[in-house]
Amino acid sequence: MNKDTLRREINDKVRLIDQSLDHYLSKSTAVPETLNQAMRYSIFAGGKRIRPVLLLASAEAVGGDPAMLLPAASAFEMVHTYSLIHDDLPAMDNDDFRRGLPTNHRVFGEAMAILAGDGLLTHAFCLITECADSGNISPETVIQVIKELSLAAGPFGMIGGQVVDINSENQVINKQVLDYIHSHKTGALFRACVRAGALLGGGSADQLGALTRYAENLGLAFQITDDVLDVEGDSGKLGKSVGSDERLMKATYPSVYGLEESKRLAGNAVGRAREALDIFGSEADLLRYIADYLLEREN
Amino acid sequence: MNKDTLRREINDKVRLIDQSLDHYLSKSTAVPETLNQAMRYSIFAGGKRIRPVLLLASAEAVGGDPAMLLPAASAFEMVHTYSLIHDDLPAMDNDDFRRGLPTNHRVFGEAMAILAGDGLLTHAFCLITECADSGNISPETVIQVIKELSLAAGPFGMIGGQVVDINSENQVINKQVLDYIHSHKTGALFRACVRAGALLGGGSADQLGALTRYAENLGLAFQITDDVLDVEGDSGKLGKSVGSDERLMKATYPSVYGLEESKRLAGNAVGRAREALDIFGSEADLLRYIADYLLEREN
Repeated sequence: MNKDTLRREINDKVRLIDQSLDHYLSKSTAVPETLNQAMRYSIFAGGKRIRPVLLLASAEAVGGDPAMLLPAASAFEMVHTYSLIHDDLPAMDNDDFRRGLPTNHRVFGEAMAILAGDGLLTHAFCLITECADSGNISPETVIQVIKELSLAAGPFGMIGGQVVDINSENQVINKQVLDYIHSHKTGALFRACVRAGALLGGGSADQLGALTRYAENLGLAFQITDDVLDVEGDSGKLGKSVGSDERLMKATYPSVYGLEESKRLAGNAVGRAREALDIFGSEADLLRYIADYLLEREN
Repeated sequence: MNKDTLRREINDKVRLIDQSLDHYLSKSTAVPETLNQAMRYSIFAGGKRIRPVLLLASAEAVGGDPAMLLPAASAFEMVHTYSLIHDDLPAMDNDDFRRGLPTNHRVFGEAMAILAGDGLLTHAFCLITECADSGNISPETVIQVIKELSLAAGPFGMIGGQVVDINSENQVINKQVLDYIHSHKTGALFRACVRAGALLGGGSADQLGALTRYAENLGLAFQITDDVLDVEGDSGKLGKSVGSDERLMKATYPSVYGLEESKRLAGNAVGRAREALDIFGSEADLLRYIADYLLEREN
């Protein structure tokens, strides 16, 4: 498939995901309006929807029907968004802007930002259970996905990575610690959303293994590119000031490996991600395109 | 059964729950040590384990085996503890002490307290999935419990109640708002843990209905008693200063109904909770005892 077709396919998926998020976070008398507004604000603050698109594209690669997986795709975006809201809090990174917009606590106050994050995280698990409602996905698979999401997002995954990241600020860190931080803080959720797509889409063990390798390398490439963009990106395109990692003395690939070596590592990781897809035909073209896009992106 | 036997049964359950929590939060190279310490600190800070005991006792009332439900019981205690850690944060109630001990953020700092809460909440869902591992509980039931926990703890439940509670500080509120706050902030998780016990224990629809009424009335009685103790309790026994609700201008039953009427309402609720158990024989004696205990407690 050519790039224009793939780009259109991604846009179509983003539109479906946005509609699904809008549906699941629609105004309800059962949820206080300020809470609903605070959750919606960060969900609709310009996210690229990479994780839910990856989930749907992985399901398609194994022959699954992505239309049935919109609740799960939305759940992963909610978990990602919760992590950004809490990361931005004054007690954490103390960021005033994200993607060019004031952060959640700057608009709704700190208490509401904490609760909006808690709410998105908690409700995500409810959405995954909805995948069992159609009767087309086995309940065992749904439970497996819930387990993998909680492990990827919890103390053994994202939270663990965030804690080590905070503890490493203003410290000289080695490659092992850098690897731990990023494989947990970013990598675990990337891996979980791709595996969720493969599992819910009915993939075989071989397909699941291949997609897991794809996701692990994609997550690494994504994180390195993020770090590189923070050094040499265009602040207008990024929606935040460049050099913030260095100011916060954050553990980054450029600070440990240097800029050129970091770019080489990102390129290698994308290569390995693409190689992992060799067992698939054109049904994985979208996943290949996403890998290239993540390397070449400017924000 | 006599009171001593029932008291011993509760102590036995508390011991099993503590062992289970210790096991699930044991030191692991896969979790950063400071995070593990912060999570353990609040989990082992003197909680009465009311919710997990209720879950196990409800399972027993319908003939289930509580030994298989320790992961789920631990999960509910983790969700309860996360809510306390986040409630105590400076941006929320700004409490320095809970149960006579410094609050989590006073010991570990605000960032770690937020993350410890996030970690407990997220890992709770992983523990519920473990109930499916034995093969004795249907995966459909496990999914139902996950759905009910996320609804009870999320924007439609506890978080919703907490938001309205915060929005109501320093405001004169009416009975409807008070009812919303407490049925969501406290009631929803009480209801969910009792229902989880009944569902995982294999209860019938009638039993589930009766236990749901029990839980709703018990949660109400618990909250009213909590509010009354804040007015006239013994700060030494409570482990916190009395009158803190009034200082924070919190929405409470005594402030809306007066002290004597509040006590009458709590007594009525306990009566209704006991009545709901009429379809059960002695297998629900522990649930009856818990209802009486919650009314008469001093902390």
